[in-house]
Amino acid sequence: MVKVGYLGPAGTYSHQAAQQEFSGAELIPQKSIGACFESMHKAEVDYAVVPFENSTNGQVVFTYDLLRDWFMKCGDSTPTPKFKVVGECFVSIHHSLIGFQPDLSKITKVYSHPQVWGQCSSFLEGLNVERIDTSSTSRAVELVAQSPLVEQNEIAAIGSSAASKLHSVPVVVPSVEDNTSNTTRFLVLGTKDEISQTSIDVRDRITLLSFVLKHFNDMGSLSHVLDVFARHKVNLVSITTRPAKLLKWQYVFFLECVTGGDASQLDPVYSELGEFTEELRIMGWFPRSVDYAGK
Amino acid sequence: MVKVGYLGPAGTYSHQAAQQEFSGAELIPQKSIGACFESMHKAEVDYAVVPFENSTNGQVVFTYDLLRDWFMKCGDSTPTPKFKVVGECFVSIHHSLIGFQPDLSKITKVYSHPQVWGQCSSFLEGLNVERIDTSSTSRAVELVAQSPLVEQNEIAAIGSSAASKLHSVPVVVPSVEDNTSNTTRFLVLGTKDEISQTSIDVRDRITLLSFVLKHFNDMGSLSHVLDVFARHKVNLVSITTRPAKLLKWQYVFFLECVTGGDASQLDPVYSELGEFTEELRIMGWFPRSVDYAGK
Repeated sequence: MVKVGYLGPAGTYSHQAAQQEFSGAELIPQKSIGACFESMHKAEVDYAVVPFENSTNGQVVFTYDLLRDWFMKCGDSTPTPKFKVVGECFVSIHHSLIGFQPDLSKITKVYSHPQVWGQCSSFLEGLNVERIDTSSTSRAVELVAQSPLVEQNEIAAIGSSAASKLHSVPVVVPSVEDNTSNTTRFLVLGTKDEISQTSIDVRDRITLLSFVLKHFNDMGSLSHVLDVFARHKVNLVSITTRPAKLLKWQYVFFLECVTGGDASQLDPVYSELGEFTEELRIMGWFPRSVDYAGK
Repeated sequence: MVKVGYLGPAGTYSHQAAQQEFSGAELIPQKSIGACFESMHKAEVDYAVVPFENSTNGQVVFTYDLLRDWFMKCGDSTPTPKFKVVGECFVSIHHSLIGFQPDLSKITKVYSHPQVWGQCSSFLEGLNVERIDTSSTSRAVELVAQSPLVEQNEIAAIGSSAASKLHSVPVVVPSVEDNTSNTTRFLVLGTKDEISQTSIDVRDRITLLSFVLKHFNDMGSLSHVLDVFARHKVNLVSITTRPAKLLKWQYVFFLECVTGGDASQLDPVYSELGEFTEELRIMGWFPRSVDYAGK
């Protein structure tokens, strides 16, 4: 049976992503996003699903930095990863306030994953509560479920309706997210090229690549890089940066571009990029999810 | 006396930045980064100091999103801000583990600002503790100071040595940050053009601007934007994105470029950018800090 790692415990949005993408697989919860990468590298799982960006909150920086640390040598002797990015999937994120206390004015503490605060800022502004970070939204709900009765009178969690059901804690307020079209995009890590049998030739494919600029204080070079894509009529769909760690204020760039089913379309791009970039890494080449526009 | 707002309470790194940049001014703590922007707009302060990026941890997303919300109309009727970005400053960030419990194995909870976890990940990996978010590093240390004795046996905070002194809680482990050259860059908001009398003509100046792409799914247009800078020999030093909030997967771009003392150098750039961008905003034009390379 296919094994799929995800950021556990059960009831997280990552769990939902894994269920959505891999029906009938054995879903194996991991302790952290880092552990998802580790378990891929050790071949303990066939795939892993990791959160990548949220339509409201932006980058999931942990994942970006793990991609950087695994794929960019940056001078040190990390092993070459035995996996790459083989897919993406989209999950609609609806957060609920979950707890046993229906009177919001009596709630003093709210538990949730740190990524959630920025997605529910309007709702949270109206509450006078302390925010307490947990390792996942599901763990937040579990903490409410396991609290002594006297504490349950003062606390709540923000999480998914799946976590509410899993831990038998009622939803107090549904849809507390700022933006109801709030969506998280997940990446699928794997060692095989394809995750499904859909006819990929007719679909758009995403290439995810990263690099550092050769002369990073002379960012005319970024313009040169992007110009290479433009001249070869390759459509860039996102660009973002993270600190490169080696030198202060040097950045790792992450770019995504869309092509059709022919990988060789990018060959001339790669050969020209060498002049302006160092450590150019192709981290993945995978089908654009049909849910991209819809979710 | 000049009034300067900063992310309070006293003892935060923002406090340190304000002290460093404005000697002899009245420093007024604010409850949040958002409150720093608000107090500028209401002219309750002459300047405000806000954290912008950290050399290890990257973007301070709260500040980026506040800049977006204040400067980009994005269709709604927010008032035009009465301030802009008038300066930058750099603060070396050294985090300490602060508390009354010298035996690390007995510590079960650590308080700190969420931005800190990513900067101390190696140290934290070695501890078996729950991480609890606080509104600032100084507040984290204050919580330890104010805890009942029995609780002080199990908790600690991560914060600055200034906060340790302010709240009279000893440093248990100094320099727990992953990277000892860890630096935070702050922006100075203000209504006046210049924050100091230094001869600015000979110094590099930074222009901070933001925009959304006209055809955001056709990112050839980003290449066109950057090409405008390259053709006019304007040196870009950073580019980054945040979600635009209006449309899913549409981004607001933040660009910084360096010029000399002559602002008109950018006039042809701005006039050509209109073809590819919407809501182009110049959020600031300010001297490059002498500490840029050094700190």
